This record gives sequence, C-alpha cells and structure tokens, in this order.
Amino acid sequence: MFTSKADVCVVGSGSGGKMVAQQLAQAGRRVVLVDGGFIGGFCPYVACVPAKSLLLSARAALSWTAARAVRDEAASQRDDTAAAAELEADGVEVVRGYARSLGPGRVELDDRAVEAGVVVVATGSSAVLPPLPGLAGAPTWTSEEALSAADLPERLVVLGGGPVACELAQAYRGVGSEVTLVQRGPHLLSREPAWVGDVLADALAADGVDVRRGDPATAVEQHDGWRLRLESGALIPFDRLLVATGRAPVTEGLGLDEEWLSDSGHVRTNARCRVVDASGTVVEGLFAVGDVTGISDYTHTANHQARTVVGEVLGRGRDADYSAVPRAVYTDPTVFCTGDTSGGEGVRSARFPLRDVERSALVELSRPRQVTGGVELFARDGVLVGAACVGPDADSWGAELSLAVRARLTVDLLAHHVRAFPTWSEAIFPALEELQG
Amino acid sequence: MFTSKADVCVVGSGSGGKMVAQQLAQAGRRVVLVDGGFIGGFCPYVACVPAKSLLLSARAALSWTAARAVRDEAASQRDDTAAAAELEADGVEVVRGYARSLGPGRVELDDRAVEAGVVVVATGSSAVLPPLPGLAGAPTWTSEEALSAADLPERLVVLGGGPVACELAQAYRGVGSEVTLVQRGPHLLSREPAWVGDVLADALAADGVDVRRGDPATAVEQHDGWRLRLESGALIPFDRLLVATGRAPVTEGLGLDEEWLSDSGHVRTNARCRVVDASGTVVEGLFAVGDVTGISDYTHTANHQARTVVGEVLGRGRDADYSAVPRAVYTDPTVFCTGDTSGGEGVRSARFPLRDVERSALVELSRPRQVTGGVELFARDGVLVGAACVGPDADSWGAELSLAVRARLTVDLLAHHVRAFPTWSEAIFPALEELQG
Repeated sequence: MFTSKADVCVVGSGSGGKMVAQQLAQAGRRVVLVDGGFIGGFCPYVACVPAKSLLLSARAALSWTAARAVRDEAASQRDDTAAAAELEADGVEVVRGYARSLGPGRVELDDRAVEAGVVVVATGSSAVLPPLPGLAGAPTWTSEEALSAADLPERLVVLGGGPVACELAQAYRGVGSEVTLVQRGPHLLSREPAWVGDVLADALAADGVDVRRGDPATAVEQHDGWRLRLESGALIPFDRLLVATGRAPVTEGLGLDEEWLSDSGHVRTNARCRVVDASGTVVEGLFAVGDVTGISDYTHTANHQARTVVGEVLGRGRDADYSAVPRAVYTDPTVFCTGDTSGGEGVRSARFPLRDVERSALVELSRPRQVTGGVELFARDGVLVGAACVGPDADSWGAELSLAVRARLTVDLLAHHVRAFPTWSEAIFPALEELQG
Repeated sequence: MFTSKADVCVVGSGSGGKMVAQQLAQAGRRVVLVDGGFIGGFCPYVACVPAKSLLLSARAALSWTAARAVRDEAASQRDDTAAAAELEADGVEVVRGYARSLGPGRVELDDRAVEAGVVVVATGSSAVLPPLPGLAGAPTWTSEEALSAADLPERLVVLGGGPVACELAQAYRGVGSEVTLVQRGPHLLSREPAWVGDVLADALAADGVDVRRGDPATAVEQHDGWRLRLESGALIPFDRLLVATGRAPVTEGLGLDEEWLSDSGHVRTNARCRVVDASGTVVEGLFAVGDVTGISDYTHTANHQARTVVGEVLGRGRDADYSAVPRAVYTDPTVFCTGDTSGGEGVRSARFPLRDVERSALVELSRPRQVTGGVELFARDGVLVGAACVGPDADSWGAELSLAVRARLTVDLLAHHVRAFPTWSEAIFPALEELQG
C-alpha cells in the first residue's frame, strides 16, 4: 500500500473539514484532505445552499423551471471541481476516496494510507429512514435528493417537523407542489418553545401546506398509487415522500474505536474538539468537527469547531463555545433561536409580538402578507441565556440576541441600550422590561 | 390667568415628550402635556413614519396614488385625535397650545399657566432654509411638507445629502418623480465613512436619481420655470425644491435663559437629561429630551432620553448612554452606523464586502438587483467602538454591532462568536479577523 506523510489528514471535506484543511495549509502545514463524495460536503450542493435558494425563489414567485435553474446554479451544478481546485491552490492535497480505517497518526483508504500527526474526523451525517412498514420500495426522497431533483412532484408528503422538513415543505409548496407535512408530535420545531412551531405551522397552512401534527405516520401503502397512513386512519396520497425525520453520524466502516463513540453514536469530543474516550481521556492527535460530533448540525457550528481545531493545532488554543449557536430556519417567517430556550428551573421568560412594533404596521400597509411572530427572551439570575425570534428577517435582527447570550450580558444592560426606530429590534425592549419588572 | 398645578409639565409631545408624559402618568404622577402642533410630534405624521412608508411603497413598485394612500394611512391621515385620546386614557392632561414662557416650576401659555415641580422641554427641531439667493418665493418643501404633499412633482430637486435627503430622493424617484440630489460636499452622509455615502450614491444613481456631489447650489432662478444654479454653472430645472440641509432646535419664544443654551442653540443637558447652565450647574426641576438637546436627531434617542428622565424622576436614575445610538437610513441599500466611525487616533478599522458572503450569491440569483455594501468595524485597544453597515437589512443585522459597542465588547470575544450560515452577519467575521491579525 502506498503510504504518504503529512502534518494533517482531514477526513471529510464539508464546511468544517474544508476550513481546517484550508487554514492549516495556509499556515504552512502539509495537509491531505480525503473525501469520496462532494469536495465541500453536502451544504453547497445538496443541502443548505440549494434549500435557501429554493426558498428565495418561492418567495420571488419563480416557476419550478426557473427555480430549479437558479437552485442548480447556486449549487454550482453539483460540480465540485472549483472547490477542489480552490483547496489545491491553497496547498491542500485533495484525495478522492473513502477512508476505511482512521485513528491517531494514520488514515487508510482502499489503495493508500496517510500518516499524519494530526487526524481530523469530519465525516458528517446522513439521513436515517424511520422503521415505517411499507417504506422500502416507496418513492422516497432524502433532503439531499429533494434538493437535487429534476422533477417537481405533484403531491409531496414531508415526513418530519424539524428545520429541514419545514424549509422544504414551504419551498416545494412555493414552486407548485401540493404539500402535506406530517409531524409525529404536537408542534413543529419540537426543541423550541411551542409557540415558535405554531406560528410557523400557521404560516405554512396559509401558504397552502396541509400541516398534520400529533398524528404519526403508521405505514406506507400502495394501491392506485402511494398513500401514507396516519395513526388517526387518515390516508394521504403522494407521488413522493420526503423523509426528514432525523440524521445519524457517519462513522460506519471507519474503524473507529467504540470507546470514542457516545451512546448516540457520535464521536466524543472535548471543548478543544479533541476526540476523547468514555472517561474523557484525550486521544492524542485525533480531532473531530461537524455533524459527526453531534453538537449541533449546522454549518456555522462546524466552522466554529474548525476554528477551534486550527487554533489548537497552531498553539493558540481556546475552548469552543456552544452557548449561543444560532438555530435558524429560513422559512417565511424566519425562525432564529439561540442559547437555552427550554425554560428550565430558575429561568424567567417574556415575550412580545412583532405586530405591536411600528415596523409591522409599515410593512403590512405596502405588502399584503400579515406580520406574525415575535420574540421570547429567557434569563437566569438577570442574565440573558436564550432567545426565540420569529418573523421577517429574524435571522438578521436575532443576531443581536445571540451575541448577548454569548457575551453573558445582563437584562439590565440590554434594557439600557438604544434600538433604532422603526426596526424589528424594537420588539426586544418590551420583553426586557417585562423581565426587569 | 388660569393657573393649574401638576407634578410634571411636559412641553412638546414628540416621541420623547410623549413617553415621559405617559410613563410618569402611569406611575401615578399628575402630568400636563402641552403642544400646539401634532400630539405625537412630527414622527408619526410628517416625518419618520410616512418616509419609511413611501420607501417601502417605492420598493413594492406602488403607483404614486397608491403610495400616497398608504402613506396617509400610515400617518393616521395626519389626525392626532387617537394619540391625544391614548394619552388622556393614561391620565395625562393634554393641553393644545404653545408655551410662551418656560422655566423651573412654571410653564405659561397664552391663556393659562401650569405650576409643576418637574418641567420637561421637548420642543423638537424644525427645518432651516439655507441663505440661498432667490430661495424666497420659490416652490420649496421642507421634509414635513414633502411627506404630506398631495401632488407628485414631475421634477424634484433635493437639496442636501443627509439621511432625510437620501431617503426622500429614493422614495420620490421610486414613485415617479425625476429627481436630482444636490449635495454640497463630496460625499453623501458626510458624517459617516466616505464609502458609505458612495455606495448609497451609486444605488441612487442606479435608481435613476441624478446625484450631484461637490457642486454646491449658488442660487435659485426663475425664467421659463424654476432652476437651481450650481457652482459649476449647471442649471437644474425643477417644479419643487426639497430643502433638507439641516434643522435647528425649537427654542424661540419659550423664554429660555440664554445660559441654558449651547453655542449651537440647543438646550444643554447632563447625562441625566437635566438642564444645565454653561458651567454645568443643574437647573433644578428642569429637564430636556429629544431634538432640542442636539444630542442626536432620532426618535430612538428621544425615547432613551425619555426613559432617563422617567428613571430620574422616579428615583431610580441612571445616566443616559449615547455610545451606541444607531444612525439608520432606510434606503435600499439600508445604512446603519453606530458608535464612533470617525477613525480617530488609535482606532483601527477593517472592512468586508457583502458580495463575498454566501447570502449575497443566493439573493442575487433569485432577484435581479446587485448586492452592494459591506461592513466596516472600528476598534480601539481591542474594543469595538463603532461600525458602519450598508446593505440589505442592515438595520437588522447591524443591531448586533450596536449592542457590541454599547457593551464595550472586545474584538476577541466577537471573533469567538458563532454567526449563522448563510446570513449577512457572516460579513462581520472576516472584518474581525483582520482587526485581530
């Protein structure tokens, strides 16, 4: 077996892996980046980027044909040549292939091996199909398939109620499909406060999505076409079933030590993104970033972890901070949650509707769509610990609150800050006053 | 003369005065609010609110007739009855009339007087016409007139290059006027970094506004219609000349002591919004808020001052903090500046263009308009002291930076924060890295 030497070997070229490789190569390290799939990972080709593109096209009322063309352009026609070339221009050696064995000091592929003092696991996650009778053989889509599909399904059923399910339900409805969303539990976005998912469900319903909540799918049936059976007995005909019920870390076949994996199967990491065993002992020379760590499945989390690894390798290490990772859903209304929105013991919360700020009246007068949503703040001992934002541009104005959580700012300081009139941010003030009072 | 007694007499019912009156009445104080003009001040009827309404209508491509109707609805048809009723419902005695004399303990109108332990000056500002030969007699507009006009000028010349001039130039161009903007100096928004005004000038030009910079107006002439003569000799024909070159505090005829006025004619205040004389000595029982103080001519500044006065009167006083007052211009692209963007000694700055973040590519693919703008950060001793933001939704995503300035956060902490992919906020990161490096 051909064996080469490097300073760093990164396995997986998604956002986090790519960033580690690029920045360490720029810092003069010899870096090998191994990936058998898209160089750049799912995000630019079959995930975040085409999803946001379809949502924007739906909002701009483009036809399916136009929206698909725009989506494919945004996704670089799913051609990763440019991404690979960019990495190589930065001095990264790009190896196309899958790792078959991976551990401290050494990564093996089918036909070659790389010896490196630093090995980074960045293999990502993949969709998991639920154990639903009749599902095998049905015309299903993963989100990756939905975001690279050539044809528009006439009748689409979306299984799931998380960010991906909500985004794709709205996007496909917007470009012309009849869409039914089937969520097992009573609320969409079930990890966020109930009102957040409920506002979004109302918006999806207003778009014409048939939103079914609290009525789990029990089977897929086929006679005169495909149908999804729900617990209530309802039968929903479909041409395509988009399964967005969950993802699992990609660790199979990598030869990872069981001790490095958590109960959920994710690679265990410490605050410096070093792989650790069950007892917390560091596995020297081994790092992990991105979805495979199970910390939070967002491109920006992977990027933060990548910066952490780069800092650690270059000797200016610093703990990662996950206290204020934004959880954004790019629907209309947009959802942006950050920090702890679970409202546990000792947490006070206060909420204010966007409808009651001046911006809302202004927007509604010149555009037909009603403004919904609002902001809910969560504080413990007078310090902001979380926020849930729903409404137009929430991914922009919510960023202030994410920073506030990250910087552990007090409610008192936040209430003594000047927010511009007439912005959406004005909704933050009354919620702060309620927390103070 | 009829004399009544109160705890508080507020002179001027603009945003700041109204808030003081309302909150102190809600706290149980006997409050008299005096105003001879609109109850609620200019903002809701002939300033901010109709301006933002016209801009939104222009963006939504409404006709002048539709935009005017929407504007007038946003401005409550310039009927302040509801605002007065709302104040009275809160227990405020609303007196319609102008104060003729004002000082600690006593406010006099033409036909009555109010004795009050607390007197608040909130008389606002008014447009100043520049000493331009031929201006008298010409068909001019102040911004208030422009924002309540019934007819659309075919050819509008806007004199000035500040926020109001820029907003109204874009709004009137958007609803159908031919617009020329004449700015004396070389840049629009001259108090901000030059690139900010230049990006906006390019956008206005792309809209079809004829932007003249560095070519001051020298005279207004009339033959075969009205024309504005510029220093270069250019002659610009117009049907209406909108003068937006500056405002002055309204202090005339109020009987204010000369000692309480600064060289610029504004009422001097300390950090608690108490009126002070030239030596800084507090004039007991006398406060001032809003444009008349000359601190910054924004509704949100007036509101912050109002909260400061309310706190002081209710015995939980706290200094006002003007370190991070947003300076927003609601054009497209939107401008949002905060803190110190003057780049004085010891200040480092770094800039990043919005075009280079993923959101930009996504937006441009589904909408024709090119994304311009960017973010510039200013730091002193590693602490963020100012930011200039230009681009889509800058009034929303810029708010994070305003809070960062207010909370005196370090560049290091800001760079260690997670910003959501793919948002405009991602432009902040590379600028921070440049400041660090």
